[in-house]
Amino acid sequence: MSELRRDPILRRWVIIAPEREEAAPRPAGPVPAREEGACPLCPGQEAANPHEIAALPATGGQPGRWSVRVTPDRRPLLHIEGELERRGSGVFDVMSAIGAHELVTETPLHDQHWPRFDLPQMRRVLSVYRDRYLDLKRDPRFRHIVVLKNHGAPWSRFVHQHSHILAMPFTPKRIAEELAGAREYFRMKERCVFCDVLSEELAGGTRTIAANESFVAFAPFASSAPFEIWLAPRQHGADFGQLEEGTIDALAELFLLTMCALDRELTCPSFSLALHTAPLGGAGTAEYHWHWELMPHLSGQLGLEWATGVHANAVAPEEAARRLRAAARCGETGLSPSASR
Amino acid sequence: MSELRRDPILRRWVIIAPEREEAAPRPAGPVPAREEGACPLCPGQEAANPHEIAALPATGGQPGRWSVRVTPDRRPLLHIEGELERRGSGVFDVMSAIGAHELVTETPLHDQHWPRFDLPQMRRVLSVYRDRYLDLKRDPRFRHIVVLKNHGAPWSRFVHQHSHILAMPFTPKRIAEELAGAREYFRMKERCVFCDVLSEELAGGTRTIAANESFVAFAPFASSAPFEIWLAPRQHGADFGQLEEGTIDALAELFLLTMCALDRELTCPSFSLALHTAPLGGAGTAEYHWHWELMPHLSGQLGLEWATGVHANAVAPEEAARRLRAAARCGETGLSPSASR
Repeated sequence: MSELRRDPILRRWVIIAPEREEAAPRPAGPVPAREEGACPLCPGQEAANPHEIAALPATGGQPGRWSVRVTPDRRPLLHIEGELERRGSGVFDVMSAIGAHELVTETPLHDQHWPRFDLPQMRRVLSVYRDRYLDLKRDPRFRHIVVLKNHGAPWSRFVHQHSHILAMPFTPKRIAEELAGAREYFRMKERCVFCDVLSEELAGGTRTIAANESFVAFAPFASSAPFEIWLAPRQHGADFGQLEEGTIDALAELFLLTMCALDRELTCPSFSLALHTAPLGGAGTAEYHWHWELMPHLSGQLGLEWATGVHANAVAPEEAARRLRAAARCGETGLSPSASR
Repeated sequence: MSELRRDPILRRWVIIAPEREEAAPRPAGPVPAREEGACPLCPGQEAANPHEIAALPATGGQPGRWSVRVTPDRRPLLHIEGELERRGSGVFDVMSAIGAHELVTETPLHDQHWPRFDLPQMRRVLSVYRDRYLDLKRDPRFRHIVVLKNHGAPWSRFVHQHSHILAMPFTPKRIAEELAGAREYFRMKERCVFCDVLSEELAGGTRTIAANESFVAFAPFASSAPFEIWLAPRQHGADFGQLEEGTIDALAELFLLTMCALDRELTCPSFSLALHTAPLGGAGTAEYHWHWELMPHLSGQLGLEWATGVHANAVAPEEAARRLRAAARCGETGLSPSASR
């Protein structure tokens, strides 16, 4: 049974999910994208994932009946059904692994990726993100929503373009840290730190990649890895749900332009992309500033850690310790473990 | 020129090190361990790294004249020479990349790894870690010291067993977070959170792997990935420098036993191993508790991020933005970047 465990020192929640299929630790090398048989995300394969949470209709030239489709993830990290229960376990804290984990199929075309999307399709994907965000936001059990896209080998589960929407019953560590930093800055200056960074980037220009009337794409000053990219609205806003109809096209345009440049410069890199928005419940309205972060060459499980600071672990430590104790006992080293008590 | 840049939102220092050889973003797939020609860490190749910071003499059966050897890293992340200079740059903060980056060659034998070490050799490695720690601790420019070992493909630079000792002019984010968590716990309970965790682990036993009179190896309750392992002293102590002569053997024994079990259970996994000790200067004496953390299947650059929360980035964001702007301009998508100002 999966559960949320709180690290008593770092005070972060970890998803212990032993029922997930990758029970083995992650291999050091690449894993081929798993595609056996028909792609379950293609039109005609809807029976593989029959529960349709949302869908936009197909338009001219698209196969099947939908252009973007949202379904529950079939191997969810968090489970939508159940009460949110909290309990102590000695010195430790545990919470039930309640949440939402939705899969967005971003196109009906099996092998079309973002740089090949046209502007209307990119716009549809962004509007689905926003609409699902607004819907999940109403569930009082949730504290935070993240949109996460992992593209490319080795960790992406399907070649067919898709992304994840996760609603969590806690504020992820990374978002809490960003909010704390933004609040400290606001206390000093009574200004949003993100707004100040954006004006400096636009004035200097050495780290900007592209900009239009509503959004800016830039390489952040303290980029933690090569080709990290942020896309942020010029106008202050803490909540991604405020993305207006009138500006979605500008965001879609900037996404396409940035993705095309990245594909050309790094020859179609794998990447992770994540939405950073304020926690639900209204905190950070003046201090936080929603944006997207993109990191080439990160994907899969590491994508979630990078985006949120939340780790998901498929081997419970009790199981790991049991197996290592057994391995230690069958040793030929002449050393033996002392009694553990 | 490399420099330290502070993320204005997350308030963490990032090492921007464009002169490091891996100027390209890290590839998604595995990279073969780089070994062209003679191994520069083998006895007889000392001229490849002539400046010897420390060495222990060879003992019976070992080739060459040393058993453990410490040299400056030839591609240092931080540089030992220079003044520590801090300056502002608009809204941003910059510091010179001052620090120490030493390479410990852990054995004169080219292909012997830890599970094959005998107890005296393991003891020598640990005592060299402690002695270098105590020496670096005296430099008033440094705030924190980390010992980091990355073992195995794809990120380890040499097959020959080695580890890194890094002294930094700031407290890494991860250590600051651990200290903050430990302090909050101490404020509530007036007890060390690590001591409480250790007694609970020893009483329960389901997550302990092995223990002796002085140290415990266990899989932590909120393990963030499969087979995460901690080794910690039973007796409270914040500072690794306090490791006593009389207990080094017990730590060496527990390391060997744990590494043998891990090699057997996961068939010689790659791993990262890091020392967690209190920041220099005496903070956390009552609240912090030094220990080692081991994570299978993490290595190289990710090892440093995992151990300390410190990222090292070989492509300055200005360079990334310049290349992406150029790539965006040569696009054939019909989209073009608006003026960036």
